[in-house]
Amino acid sequence: MYIKLIPVAASCDVTDLAGTTAVVFDVLRATSTIVTALASGFRLVYPVAEADEARALAEARGFLLAGERGGEKIAGFPHGNSPLEFSAGPAAGSDALVLTTSNGTGAIRKAAAAACVLTGSLLNARAVAAAVLREGRDVQLVCAGTAGEFSLEDALGAGFVLVEMEQAAGGLPEMDDLAMAAYDLARFYSRDPLAGLRAGRHGQKLLRLGREADLRWCARLNRFDLAPVFTGDCLMVPGVES
Amino acid sequence: MYIKLIPVAASCDVTDLAGTTAVVFDVLRATSTIVTALASGFRLVYPVAEADEARALAEARGFLLAGERGGEKIAGFPHGNSPLEFSAGPAAGSDALVLTTSNGTGAIRKAAAAACVLTGSLLNARAVAAAVLREGRDVQLVCAGTAGEFSLEDALGAGFVLVEMEQAAGGLPEMDDLAMAAYDLARFYSRDPLAGLRAGRHGQKLLRLGREADLRWCARLNRFDLAPVFTGDCLMVPGVES
Repeated sequence: MYIKLIPVAASCDVTDLAGTTAVVFDVLRATSTIVTALASGFRLVYPVAEADEARALAEARGFLLAGERGGEKIAGFPHGNSPLEFSAGPAAGSDALVLTTSNGTGAIRKAAAAACVLTGSLLNARAVAAAVLREGRDVQLVCAGTAGEFSLEDALGAGFVLVEMEQAAGGLPEMDDLAMAAYDLARFYSRDPLAGLRAGRHGQKLLRLGREADLRWCARLNRFDLAPVFTGDCLMVPGVES
Repeated sequence: MYIKLIPVAASCDVTDLAGTTAVVFDVLRATSTIVTALASGFRLVYPVAEADEARALAEARGFLLAGERGGEKIAGFPHGNSPLEFSAGPAAGSDALVLTTSNGTGAIRKAAAAACVLTGSLLNARAVAAAVLREGRDVQLVCAGTAGEFSLEDALGAGFVLVEMEQAAGGLPEMDDLAMAAYDLARFYSRDPLAGLRAGRHGQKLLRLGREADLRWCARLNRFDLAPVFTGDCLMVPGVES
C-alpha cells in the first residue's frame, strides 16, 4: 500500500486515481457536514458542484437543499453548509440532502475516477482509517483546498487518518512526503485539533463570519464511527443503504 | 509583507516571483552545501543546472567542479554534493566553486526572476530570516523538491526561517497555509531537527547511500550567520564580494 497526498483537488490528475481508494477532505466544512448528516439520520447526501444543478435536483426529487459559497449560505437556499444545521437529523420530509459547496462537493465528484471514494474529516478519522485498510488498495488523500489553494485543515484531516491507520495497523505504510507532512501536522496538533483548524486562513475567515461553533464541532476527533462512500451519484453509509 | 510557500520549484510560476524576495531551499543538500562552502572560505559558488555546462565553466575559469545526480557524485567530477567536502574551505587553487545538482541548482536559476534571491537551509535559518526582514518585500519560499515532488526537508528549512522571523520580528507576518504548515512542521521538529531530515523519502535515500554524516551536518540549526545571495550568475555573501 502506497499513500499519496494531493494538496489541492483542482490540480489532481484523475488518471492517477484509477485503481486507488480516494479519501476526500474538505474539513471546513463539506466533508464534516456530510458525515454529521449521515450520522444523524440522513440516509443519502448528493454532492453537487453547481448551485443551479443542486436546486433542480432537490426540486425534482423532493430532497432537502443546502449550499454555500465563500463561507456563506447561498441566497434563497433553505440551508447552508454548517454541520450544526444537520446534527439533529432530518425533520419531517425527505431524509436525502443535496449539498453544493465552494470546494468540497466538486472535489468529491472529481475523485469519482477512483475505485472507491470515501469522505474524511476529523469527526470520522478512525472509521476512514479502518475502511482504507479494509479496501487494501493504494490511497490518494485528496485535499479539497480553498479556491484552488492548499488548506491546512484538509491536510490535518488527512494526517489524523494516517495517525489512526498507524494505530490500527501497528505501523505506517509507505507514503510520499506530503502525506508525511500531514501526519506530522496531526501529531503536532494532536492535543488541540481546534488550534489546527484556527491556524489556517479558511478557519480564520469562518471565525470572522461568526462560525466558531462550526470549528469546535469539526475539531471533535473520532466523534462518529462511519465512513461515507460516494457511489458516483450520492454519499451513503455502506450497509445502511445498498 | 505576505509569505507564500512554493512546494516544488518545478511548478513555480516565475511571473509570481517579480518584485519578491525568493528564498530557495534544497536542504538535502545543495543549499546546505552552498552555505557551508561560503562560510568556510569559498568566495563564489556558481549554481549550474546541467553537468556539461558546469564542467565547461569550471575548465574555462579554473574553478573547482562539484556535481551530483540521484544523490551520488557525477562520474568524473572531482567533488560531489556533500557539505562536508567543502567545510574545510578551498585548498590551494580557486576559491570559486561550480556546483550542479539534481534539483537545487536548477531551482536557484528558476528563482532568478525575483527581485532578490537567497538560499536557505537549517544551517543559516536565522541569517536568512534577518535578510528577508531587511529586504521588506513579499516573500516566496521556494522548495526545490526532489524529481518534481515535494520534499519534507525543504519545507522544514522554510519553516525554521519562519520561526526565526517570528522571533526577530515579535510576530508572524501574513502567510498562506503551505507556509503555515511549514512553520508548524518546524515547531514539531524543533527539539530534534535531525528527525525531520530522516523522516522524508530523500533523507531515507541518503541514509541508504551511507550519508548519515551529511544529514547530521545539515540538521545543525543556525550554525552559520550568513545569507548567500544569487546575483543571477553566482552566489556570494553580500559585503564579502561586490
